[in-house]
Amino acid sequence: MKEILALNAFDPRAGASFDGPLALELARRARAFGAASVLFYDRPLEFVRAEGCWLYDRDGVAYLDAYNNVPSVGHCHPHIVAAATRQLAALNIHNRYLHEGTLAFAEALLATLPPPLTNVTFTCTGSESNDLALRLAANFTSARGVIVTAAAYHGNTALATEVSPSSYRRGGPPPHVRVIPAPLCRNDSRPAAEVARRFAADVAAGIDALQRDGHGFAALLFDSIFSSDGVFAEPAGFLAPAVELAQRAGGLVIADEVQPGFGRTGAALWGFARHGIAPDIVTMGKPMGNGYPLAALVTRPEVLDAFCANVGYFNTFGGSPVAAAVGQAVLEVIAAEGLVANAAVVGAHLKRGLEVLGARHPAIAEVRGVGLYLGVELRAPAGQDVARFTSRVINELRERQVLIGAAGARGNVLKLRPPLCLSIAQAERLLTALDAVLATLPADA
Amino acid sequence: MKEILALNAFDPRAGASFDGPLALELARRARAFGAASVLFYDRPLEFVRAEGCWLYDRDGVAYLDAYNNVPSVGHCHPHIVAAATRQLAALNIHNRYLHEGTLAFAEALLATLPPPLTNVTFTCTGSESNDLALRLAANFTSARGVIVTAAAYHGNTALATEVSPSSYRRGGPPPHVRVIPAPLCRNDSRPAAEVARRFAADVAAGIDALQRDGHGFAALLFDSIFSSDGVFAEPAGFLAPAVELAQRAGGLVIADEVQPGFGRTGAALWGFARHGIAPDIVTMGKPMGNGYPLAALVTRPEVLDAFCANVGYFNTFGGSPVAAAVGQAVLEVIAAEGLVANAAVVGAHLKRGLEVLGARHPAIAEVRGVGLYLGVELRAPAGQDVARFTSRVINELRERQVLIGAAGARGNVLKLRPPLCLSIAQAERLLTALDAVLATLPADA
Repeated sequence: MKEILALNAFDPRAGASFDGPLALELARRARAFGAASVLFYDRPLEFVRAEGCWLYDRDGVAYLDAYNNVPSVGHCHPHIVAAATRQLAALNIHNRYLHEGTLAFAEALLATLPPPLTNVTFTCTGSESNDLALRLAANFTSARGVIVTAAAYHGNTALATEVSPSSYRRGGPPPHVRVIPAPLCRNDSRPAAEVARRFAADVAAGIDALQRDGHGFAALLFDSIFSSDGVFAEPAGFLAPAVELAQRAGGLVIADEVQPGFGRTGAALWGFARHGIAPDIVTMGKPMGNGYPLAALVTRPEVLDAFCANVGYFNTFGGSPVAAAVGQAVLEVIAAEGLVANAAVVGAHLKRGLEVLGARHPAIAEVRGVGLYLGVELRAPAGQDVARFTSRVINELRERQVLIGAAGARGNVLKLRPPLCLSIAQAERLLTALDAVLATLPADA
Repeated sequence: MKEILALNAFDPRAGASFDGPLALELARRARAFGAASVLFYDRPLEFVRAEGCWLYDRDGVAYLDAYNNVPSVGHCHPHIVAAATRQLAALNIHNRYLHEGTLAFAEALLATLPPPLTNVTFTCTGSESNDLALRLAANFTSARGVIVTAAAYHGNTALATEVSPSSYRRGGPPPHVRVIPAPLCRNDSRPAAEVARRFAADVAAGIDALQRDGHGFAALLFDSIFSSDGVFAEPAGFLAPAVELAQRAGGLVIADEVQPGFGRTGAALWGFARHGIAPDIVTMGKPMGNGYPLAALVTRPEVLDAFCANVGYFNTFGGSPVAAAVGQAVLEVIAAEGLVANAAVVGAHLKRGLEVLGARHPAIAEVRGVGLYLGVELRAPAGQDVARFTSRVINELRERQVLIGAAGARGNVLKLRPPLCLSIAQAERLLTALDAVLATLPADA
């Protein structure tokens, strides 16, 4: 994302000087990865091991991880490691032979979704899932137009990048991608019905524009917590009118669960369920394999049928026995450790704590989000750039061994999305660190 | 691929009746995966474990694997499993923190490639690598036109599918993708210079057509053994004139090493090296992680720079410490076990054996390929469809516990690409089985 990368990323041109080993490693990194290398923080970090919500550097210093949602059930969870290890040693092959583990995982995953979402296609990344979802929608509707929100991110393939306004450093999405405002569901202002009405009106205007311009309307694509837009998750249910409208207009609704899925919201396994909506396609990624590249798309059989009549789709690594063993293990840990409930309880605790900080620190403009995906919108002291200020907060937290990120079109939203096993004590540690940082960086707004 | 899937795939509509457990599993499979499910063989197989070049079914029956090039250094290789296990238990995180293992693997990989190919970007799949490669080329050349061969396959994303004529079941690639004939390098007919001249002329005509139609010329994309086209690997060097011509015309040359890379040809680690050419972008996939979803793109810094100035690219799982540990272990096994040399020796033995069979069986029209990627073009008995005949051969080999596949636009090329650890004895077993199958299926051509 343009602001966020520029913000929270290490800038080799900033001329910071480091001690020998770090300087050497940074030079090697720049040489090998070139322009595509992005490192977090003014002083980049190197970790060597991890466990639960902790990352450890070479010196054994522990960092509290409140950023990484991929190791969603906890870093290096022993149940996942054991499942992967067992299956790696036994069989790891594509999905053109039968395999009981792959079939059982497919069935377990489908059992978590409402009918008629009964067909699953396994891929390796959320990007591949969204790329395929967009093609299914275009094929099914014979249209091309897609509606996404202003700072959305839906992946890194050519097609997924087209619908990811946040990925553009110059220019923007092509004309058949209609960008609408993120839902502005501020805690303190609008009633639920108003947020819902406004978002539905934006979707309706987008559909009209796409049809007027001859693109037709293929899909409404969103992640139901609007994570990249700056975290707009409340009130639950506000998406329903927009979804109904989109479906009535003949488009498919794609729920991108890469961010809100697998229990993150604390309300249900799937983010869309909070909104009482019935998407036509559900895409999944990151947390699905707790770090193993494992992703999926679930849809109605007729949507898949129509696509497969025209184009063959096969994903070599998708649904391999190892991927399935890992995915099954992730579902098992979520259930066995009550991680959806933990996300609700610890998330609510953390949110209340952030609101308490908000009452004390003028830098906090608003606290948003649900479960363990929270956004803290900042306002900068007079005369300061808010994106730079946000970056300073993030870097100061890093110096206190707490890892978070940034989101939002203006790069001014602290993004908190720890592994779902975060404890109350860990949430308190995060709050204490943020309190201390904001005390040293007073905002006079 | 349309013919190949129709050919060698299980057809649920064929009405074959199976015993209880298999019938039940097939029904479950159809329900969960729907239209996107593709199973090999008239009688689908289920494996439960694997080792080296052997796959084992539930009853412990061993199948010789001469099909799977993903577990390229051998199924469940203990060195790879150990490396993955160790790293899965220690740390598995994205590439925005420094990590010595990721850096060391990047450097080891880059050390195998000639300058100026000095920047690597890690992805998860060959499809993601080719998708990115096409965007780099379009961005760098400010053109859109791509040249590919008639039955090429380069991946499953929207963009990669556009350049994969073999993926289309209806219609074909869009106008900016120019399809040229595969190089017809028959062993027995044309001299080397003639093959090279002909292919270069086809590329030149393609460039002219793209420029005439206003698409411009962005890239020539090929896998240097033309695997999906039916295996056209000889004579080494025939690609050089086409590559020089494409580069002189301002296009980038993308060597897709997903099939020929990592020692498969027995001549070098990279397939393009056999041709003495200098591609601008090299893409990698499948064998790179021996089954772990690990892929990459390597290019010149200025190509990556130009892209990153316009669009952010980040791949969540790409270059994770686990991916790097696995990739490093694969390179180590290839070196330690001399697998490039083994591919040359055993591949040459297998090819000679196939040629001997060719002298005895009129069904064998031609034996092609290099190292452990061989193609056996079949001709059918009079009045028989050659694709169906090829499928029969493949299914009969399966009944003799030998696994191979099919390739080629007409689906009439047996595709042999076993793990690179294939032994002479295993090659002999394959030859014996094919001899027996062809004896029972005489071709009177």
